[in-house]
Amino acid sequence: MAEQLKVSFIGSGNLAWHLAPALDNVGFQVTEVYSPNSKHASALTERTYQAEVKDSLDFSTSRSRIFIIAASDDAIKEIASHIIMPVDSFLLHTSGSQPLSVLESSDADNVGSFYPLQTFTKNKKVDFKIVPFFIESSNTATEKIMLSIARALGSSVKKISSEDRKALHVAAVFASNFTNHMLMIAKEILHQNSLSFDLVKPLITETISKSLTVGPEKSQTGPAFRSDLEILDSHMEFLKDNQKLAEIYQMISQSIIDMYNPK
Amino acid sequence: MAEQLKVSFIGSGNLAWHLAPALDNVGFQVTEVYSPNSKHASALTERTYQAEVKDSLDFSTSRSRIFIIAASDDAIKEIASHIIMPVDSFLLHTSGSQPLSVLESSDADNVGSFYPLQTFTKNKKVDFKIVPFFIESSNTATEKIMLSIARALGSSVKKISSEDRKALHVAAVFASNFTNHMLMIAKEILHQNSLSFDLVKPLITETISKSLTVGPEKSQTGPAFRSDLEILDSHMEFLKDNQKLAEIYQMISQSIIDMYNPK
Repeated sequence: MAEQLKVSFIGSGNLAWHLAPALDNVGFQVTEVYSPNSKHASALTERTYQAEVKDSLDFSTSRSRIFIIAASDDAIKEIASHIIMPVDSFLLHTSGSQPLSVLESSDADNVGSFYPLQTFTKNKKVDFKIVPFFIESSNTATEKIMLSIARALGSSVKKISSEDRKALHVAAVFASNFTNHMLMIAKEILHQNSLSFDLVKPLITETISKSLTVGPEKSQTGPAFRSDLEILDSHMEFLKDNQKLAEIYQMISQSIIDMYNPK
Repeated sequence: MAEQLKVSFIGSGNLAWHLAPALDNVGFQVTEVYSPNSKHASALTERTYQAEVKDSLDFSTSRSRIFIIAASDDAIKEIASHIIMPVDSFLLHTSGSQPLSVLESSDADNVGSFYPLQTFTKNKKVDFKIVPFFIESSNTATEKIMLSIARALGSSVKKISSEDRKALHVAAVFASNFTNHMLMIAKEILHQNSLSFDLVKPLITETISKSLTVGPEKSQTGPAFRSDLEILDSHMEFLKDNQKLAEIYQMISQSIIDMYNPK
């Protein structure tokens, strides 16, 4: 069954970079990669066994049945309205924030949303066993296809509505993108003072471990949590030459104060 | 040597809660706990082998030589100006943000700053082997005392100036306190939509693992990083009923855009 399924990728970003070779390794066959930037498409085909670069969105003669759009969110609608699909094929998008209906304008018989809730960067190998997929589809045939892909990868799968998926995506931005940015700011402050980021790594590890174990609501510490205004003032003074960081410091501190010490 | 060193605690907060019994277990002897709230002091003495509650800051007849102030930062100066120390004893504070000089007003012969860079909450056991101590002292005798305490606990130790310690503390607020708050916000958004915080745990684990391995500057992902304005707008729309969260979302997203996509 799954051994024979052929897959084409539309888009060659961070997700496609990891997902295409992973599918090749679990019994699927990646046959084509389309990207507006043909160099990117070409680089990705080199990570697969036999995929070729596709230079248009006309897949009418494609051997693939599964078409995975792994492009930036604002490109999905455009792709959907231009893609020409073979009959009885499946068009999936991988976006956290786009509803399933974004694929309605395509000529696909079957559409699905196949959202991997993980952070992907090219320089870090991904173990798909720790990538939960959230799926939504127009029919059971599409659902089965997505289940078979996720299961082949060893990933967990959960059905979710477009609305809940958006909430999940917003939450993920706070939990992942913004968290990483907090670490980046910490690193910058340390570097500006010739201190190594390594110094705070044990703190970061313990913070996250605690937060995931006992819950973030029982893990909050720090001057804002204690409403220690003297320290908050001294930190604002410390950041006075970097107005943007000072504003972020103040806004998040106020959010912590409001949450734990409401007036 | 270390077996005979007696320690008194001034303050009974989260740090003292973990440090006092830990010292008892590595050959020190905690003899006294002072807290403005005697119930808190009493609760902490029950975690030690034989410490007693002390009801004043007059330690002139104390058997201890080491006095650790583990109180809120704004209380340290007040404690230092009122404490009466026995001769040849050591007064240490544990604050990340207070300079060593905050102890100058005390009558202590030896003063030191003994700052553990970790997050402590009462409900989560602490392994002091993952707590780096940052120390600063007025003389080598105090330095030796602090080194002996840290080494007995199995902790790493690093000398640091008051100025650098403040930078480290501000960085730690971003890396730990603010990071935890991002997770808290994520949890709230999920709960408001009847979704479990468990769904984003693999994402959080991978985010931090990647950030600590390859560096936060090479780990940033998300709509702000890609300057995907359509998603940013749709997320702001999603958060429109929670003005404070929307402001935080916008400010951090702008900070990410400014860092990676400067105009």
